[in-house]
Parts: sequence; C-alpha cells; structure tokens
Amino acid sequence: MSRRLRHLLGIDDLGRAGVEAMLARAAEHKWALSLGQKSSALAGVMVATVFFEDSTRTRSSFEIAAANLGAHVLSWSAKGSSVSKGETLLDTARTLDALGPCALVIRHSSSGAPHLVARHVRAAVVNAGDGTNEHPSQALLDALTLRERLATLEGKRVVIAGDVLHSRVARSNIRALSLLGAKVVLCGPPTLLPAGAEAMGCEVSSDFDRALEGADAVMVLRIQLERMGEAVFPSAREYQRHWGLNAARASRLPPWAPVLHPGPINRGVELSSEVADGPRSAILDQVANGVAVRMAILEACA
Amino acid sequence: MSRRLRHLLGIDDLGRAGVEAMLARAAEHKWALSLGQKSSALAGVMVATVFFEDSTRTRSSFEIAAANLGAHVLSWSAKGSSVSKGETLLDTARTLDALGPCALVIRHSSSGAPHLVARHVRAAVVNAGDGTNEHPSQALLDALTLRERLATLEGKRVVIAGDVLHSRVARSNIRALSLLGAKVVLCGPPTLLPAGAEAMGCEVSSDFDRALEGADAVMVLRIQLERMGEAVFPSAREYQRHWGLNAARASRLPPWAPVLHPGPINRGVELSSEVADGPRSAILDQVANGVAVRMAILEACA
Amino acid sequence: MSRRLRHLLGIDDLGRAGVEAMLARAAEHKWALSLGQKSSALAGVMVATVFFEDSTRTRSSFEIAAANLGAHVLSWSAKGSSVSKGETLLDTARTLDALGPCALVIRHSSSGAPHLVARHVRAAVVNAGDGTNEHPSQALLDALTLRERLATLEGKRVVIAGDVLHSRVARSNIRALSLLGAKVVLCGPPTLLPAGAEAMGCEVSSDFDRALEGADAVMVLRIQLERMGEAVFPSAREYQRHWGLNAARASRLPPWAPVLHPGPINRGVELSSEVADGPRSAILDQVANGVAVRMAILEACA
Repeated sequence: MSRRLRHLLGIDDLGRAGVEAMLARAAEHKWALSLGQKSSALAGVMVATVFFEDSTRTRSSFEIAAANLGAHVLSWSAKGSSVSKGETLLDTARTLDALGPCALVIRHSSSGAPHLVARHVRAAVVNAGDGTNEHPSQALLDALTLRERLATLEGKRVVIAGDVLHSRVARSNIRALSLLGAKVVLCGPPTLLPAGAEAMGCEVSSDFDRALEGADAVMVLRIQLERMGEAVFPSAREYQRHWGLNAARASRLPPWAPVLHPGPINRGVELSSEVADGPRSAILDQVANGVAVRMAILEACA
Repeated sequence: MSRRLRHLLGIDDLGRAGVEAMLARAAEHKWALSLGQKSSALAGVMVATVFFEDSTRTRSSFEIAAANLGAHVLSWSAKGSSVSKGETLLDTARTLDALGPCALVIRHSSSGAPHLVARHVRAAVVNAGDGTNEHPSQALLDALTLRERLATLEGKRVVIAGDVLHSRVARSNIRALSLLGAKVVLCGPPTLLPAGAEAMGCEVSSDFDRALEGADAVMVLRIQLERMGEAVFPSAREYQRHWGLNAARASRLPPWAPVLHPGPINRGVELSSEVADGPRSAILDQVANGVAVRMAILEACA
Repeated sequence: MSRRLRHLLGIDDLGRAGVEAMLARAAEHKWALSLGQKSSALAGVMVATVFFEDSTRTRSSFEIAAANLGAHVLSWSAKGSSVSKGETLLDTARTLDALGPCALVIRHSSSGAPHLVARHVRAAVVNAGDGTNEHPSQALLDALTLRERLATLEGKRVVIAGDVLHSRVARSNIRALSLLGAKVVLCGPPTLLPAGAEAMGCEVSSDFDRALEGADAVMVLRIQLERMGEAVFPSAREYQRHWGLNAARASRLPPWAPVLHPGPINRGVELSSEVADGPRSAILDQVANGVAVRMAILEACA
C-alpha cells in the first residue's frame, strides 16, 4: 500500500479512500496467507502491543499480523509491569517508545488515551480500543467481512443491536459503514442508544423485530453483564427476550443476511447458539479477517 | 517422520508403532540439537499454546520445541484473556483456531476438554494435560528418558509411586510403558490407587519397600499438598514416612535404576533432596528430553 | 567483543577493563541499530528471562536485546508458573537451564539469588536485579548515558540522591562510576544512607542543595512509597521538600549537567515533571541505551 499513516486513532483518520485502500490491501494479504506466503515488509522492526485491558482476539490478532510481516513483537501488559508501581500512562508509553518500536498498538479503558500518547511519541500509535470511543481495526475487519458476504456496502442496511451507547465497536462501525455507503440502523433499549444518532446519519429504533425487516446484515453487540447491576436493563432473561437474536427472530432476515458479533459471545443472552453456530454466522470469518486487516494497518503505519 | 497425526489426545492415538516412531524421531532431534542444528520443518506456520492451568515445564517446552522447528508461537493463557468475561471453552478454541495455527496445544483442568475441542477445530489438537485423564507428551518424554538409562523397556519393572488415582502423568505412562513391554507396578496409599488397575495389566501394591525390590526404575509422582485437607492422607510427614523416596529406601534398588519425577518436586515430601540431586535422578534429563519429544509431536501433527 | 564472561552478577565481575569494553561494544550496537542493522551473533540460541519480580524496562530491554541479536527468547515469570506450587528457586532455575538456554537473565527479590543459581547451572547467569544488592546492567547503561553527555567520567562529580541504602541501582553505580574515575556523592535522609560509604570512596551528605554545588550530574533514585509506613520518612510531601529534585534546585547545577532516573518515576515526589521532561533529563536516553548495553552483555555471556 502506498499511503502512509502517521497514526490510526479512529476511522476518520482514514476517510473513505483510506478505508477502501486498507480493505483492498487486507484482501491481498488474506489471499497471500491462504497460499502460505508471508511478507517481510516489517522485517527487522519491532511492534509493541500495549494492553491496559484484557483481550483475546485483538491482541493475538495484532501480534500474529506483526509476525506475518516479519516484525518482532514486544508484548506489554499492565499486569506484571511498573503500572503496579504507579507509573503514569505517558511515562509508560514514552519508555516503550524509547525502546524503538515502529508502532505502539494501545488498548486502554480511558477514551482518548491513545490520542494523548500519540502527541508524545515517535512511533505510530494504533488504537486497539479506547474506552467507549473507537476500535477502528474492528470496524475495518467488520467491513471486510460484510463486503465478502454482501459484495458491496453501498445502499445496504446494517442493523447494529445492543448497548450502542457504550460500544466503541459500534462507534467505529457507524463511521466506517457510513463512509462505505451503508445505512446504519441502531437498535437497543432506549437507555442504551446514543443521543444525536440521527445527526450521524443513522436510523434509530427500539423495536428489534421491526428493525430486522429489510436489513441486509446484523451486527450484535456483546452485552456487558457487569452493567446489569446498574439498572440499565433488568436481567439477562429480559434482555434476551427483547434484544437477543435467536433463530425465530433471525428468520425475519433474508436468507443470505450475515450475523456478526465482535466476541466474546454471551451465548443465550444477546445471541442464541443456533444463530452463532449457524450458516448466517460470520463470527469466525471476522476473527480470520482481523489478521489480514491488521497486517494492512501495521504496514501502513510502520 | 512420515506418519501424520490428526490429533494427539492420548497415548492410544499412537499405538506401539506410533510411540516407537515418535521416540525415534525425538532421539534424532535431540542429536541435532546437541550439534546446534535447528530444523525449519514448521517455518512460516504458527503453533498456539492454550493454557487454562499454570505450567512451567510443559508450556516452555512446547514453545521452545515450536521455535526450534521454525514456527511462530501464539502463547495464550486463561489469565488476562476473555475467559474472565465468561467465554466458553469452545468459543475460545474456535476463535484461536480461526487465527490460523497448525496446532493448538491445550492444557485444561477438565478431563476431556481437548477431545471436545478436537471435534470442532481445523488445527491439530495436542493434549498438554487434561484434568486427571492424560498427559501424553509427558509419558513420551518419560519413555525416552527410561530407554536412555535402561536401553529397552521390554520386560522391565517400573514402579509408579504416589497419588496414582488423580495423576494424568501416571495414566499416560501406564499406557505408554505397557505398550513398550514394561511391567508397571502402581504403589501408593490404598485410597489413592485406581480401581481396576490389574485389568490394565498393572501390579498394585501398598508396600513401597516391597514394591522397590526387583524394580528397574521408579517414577515418583508429585503429591498435591492441597489434597491433604481432604483427609486422603494425614500429613506431609506421614506421607513421607510411607510413600516418600529417600536414600535409605532407594538403596533397595539396583545401583543403575533411575528415579524420575515429573516436577515440580515437593522436596522432603515425596522425594528427598539426596535422591533428587543424586546420580539416580533423571529429572533434568526428563526436562531436556521434553523439548525433543515435543518437536517430534508438533512435526507429526502440523 | 572478544572477552567472554562466565556470568554477570555484579560490576566487580567486569573490572575497569571489562566495563570499558562493554561500553565500547554497546556504543557500536547503538550505532548499528540507528542504521537499522541487526546482528545475528546469537542466531539459533535461546535466552531465558526469569523474573520473580515485576518489571517494565529491564525485562523488555533484555528481550529486545536478545531478539536484536537473533536469539529466541523464553520469557518466564513467577506468576502463572510452578512457583505457585511451591517449587524452590534452584529447582526452577535448573529446570529452565535443562531447556537449553545460553543465558538466564534473573531478577529476584532476594539479594544473592542469581549468585546461588550461578553455582548450579550450565547457562550464563545475568543479574537483572537482586534484592538490595546489585543491578549491573542498569549501572552500565547509566555509565553509557553519562559518558554521552559528559564525554568522560574521569574526575566528574556524580550525585546519587534518595534511598541509597536499599537501592541496588545505587550499589552497582557506585562501583561502576568509581571504576571509571568519577567521584560519587551519596545524598539522602541520614537513615537511608549506607554505613561505610566513605570506605567505598564516596562522599556522603544529607544536604541536597549543598551536594548539588559543583556536581556534573545527578542520579535521582526512585523512592519506594511503600516504605513510608515504615517511618523511614514522614510523607511524600516532606520527602519532596528535602530530597526531591525540582527546577529551583536543579538550577544550582551547571547548565549541561544531566539528570538521570532509573524509572518508574514518582512525579512530584523525588522528581518534578519540569525536570523530568526538561532538557537536562537523560531518562529516555537511559531506556534506549539499555537495549544496546544488554546486547553487549548477552553477546559476552553467550
């Protein structure tokens, strides 16, 4: 890919042309991987993954992407580090930066943390999820997965269902899918829908069954069960009845419409096992596409 | 090695010919390593180690084996992962599988967990210890170590001493050693010996001193001190008196008879330091052989 | 570098010629790194990092150094290992040694732990910090950093300020800086200064302002806030007033005098942000130099 990125903090850093270029390059990487070909685009350089929060998919995916490009990986976690000694975010980031990586892939519970770091380091900063703000690599892999199933996103209707308000996945997807010409429908309990969603060009609905009619794809968000105590919704059973996607509800979709979920799934809550493991499910495609998308991101940043 | 394995879940997946072939290949790897030669048999592929339980030896050994074959390692732990968010075993395994490894090396506290995973993934599954069921790579490295010391296992008498009932190491060793022609004697507190051991071709004894007479080798199991509260045995001191191997008791063995222990050792409980650090001890040979054996396993699975 | 080291347990293992050779080799590595050149001096060998205590800088730095030399890294932590099962230090070390690394890089909370291990293993042992005893690689990277700023250490006056008594960084620096011809001034609360410092050729002072006059460099130690309960010093505010380096106090230094800190910093306690982020600060140079110094160490040990 010829375009270089200083940082990838959110989807708006890319714009439509940038998103298109990234998806095209990811598709090339995916093809090459399927042939067993690895790249040496980042041979001899180092990528640091800097995770202040737990992760299975995102971290592994970035580390495999880096290794596939020939890079050496410095895998850093808040646990077992000097953060337990009270080191500030910036001091940790600048210390890691001084070790010489070409990119710092950062996940942090505070919205804006990677943006702050980006103003103080030499390395490229890749946002791997910041608080409730953005998760741009997830949106790119979701877009790649949707395009594989739907050929194009132009004019397609994509329902994002669940706790949209607190979801960085939703926020990045709204931006990426809109840039690619899709109509995004946000659907969930009224207390968990963001104000001003219409201004972002989205439709908003609190009736999941109605929202599914005419939809080309559904992205089910993970419900954070730890929020239940906060009286945002009464119980897992209640949530599942109104906002969970099960086989009966999914039958309102056209037969080819894919179902996505960023994982990890609460089976039987926001998604039934019948749907998660059925032919509509694009969940494992999302995981596999994550590696190719992150190769394209690291390549563009390094 | 020319034989390919779909999975390695237990010793019975190999049979006698498979065990022999694996040991022969491991011996070749050990020789090559001693000459500083590495292999590139797995260059460009990925091996994932997926540990739901703590480990020093097994995990490091598999990761070094993978690296010695030129593979990239994805090192995954339940700690710091989405398991803390309630992800199921199968979802975790399928997610990791979708990242593209050639093998998933799995340790889990539940017997049968790797077998369940194996029915749902594309990668080869290697059982690195499941509950109280099996630990096949340990049995193979034990067999390699015993053959180095005893030349052959045919007709040899091997005592396995301790908490045989709960030991996956014992269970895999009974199978592997029997396949290779050894007579296995199980020895320990009556409450910690498995029912039906005779049906597996083993002798059973609760008198350690008598069992040692005529033995060609002793494998001392780790006593899990956390079981003491369960009134299975009264105290560490009591255990040591009846079931611990010390120098006096070891003198009943022929001078060339080796002592094995899967580690980590409770010094002064099941094994005295005099024996653990003496000339009979094959404990560090076991560790070194583990790397060569796991190279052979990964090569056969990948 | 032509000199071979059996182990690096403390600065005295090197002597002046050894320190000089190490710094010269580190400078060569730093230069090569800046040109994007990697070494393959340790290709095909393994380096194990064995950390019984948390670390950000030291561990990452050693692991990057090993990777830069082409080595494979075995990254071992007490957390998630058999130490939780009560394994002894020596059994852990001998087990890791049996896996075949060329070097064991050890951090432990007990002074002398690496020395004990060194008497029982085949691999070279590198002390990455033992209790309150030594941290030789830190002293070498500090010396490299000081020489970059001051051209030479011969006849220079270096103030080490803070809890000198409990600091392994201070202890190794006193030795290294003295070998290189510097005059070391120890400065801190009287209860936190070691007895017999004059016998080591140091000056001792409890007046930070006076000690700074005529100084060519200051090394500020991290105050361990967890010691406050021990009534060694009354409060962070009190400490900062007497022993903290802020801009006003730093203005007593000549304009070119660098300020060092081993990190992580307690901002506003032992060091003000104005100084930590100002032009005197050599803190990020220390981090970067750590990689080059550790490449030289591993190369000499392997």
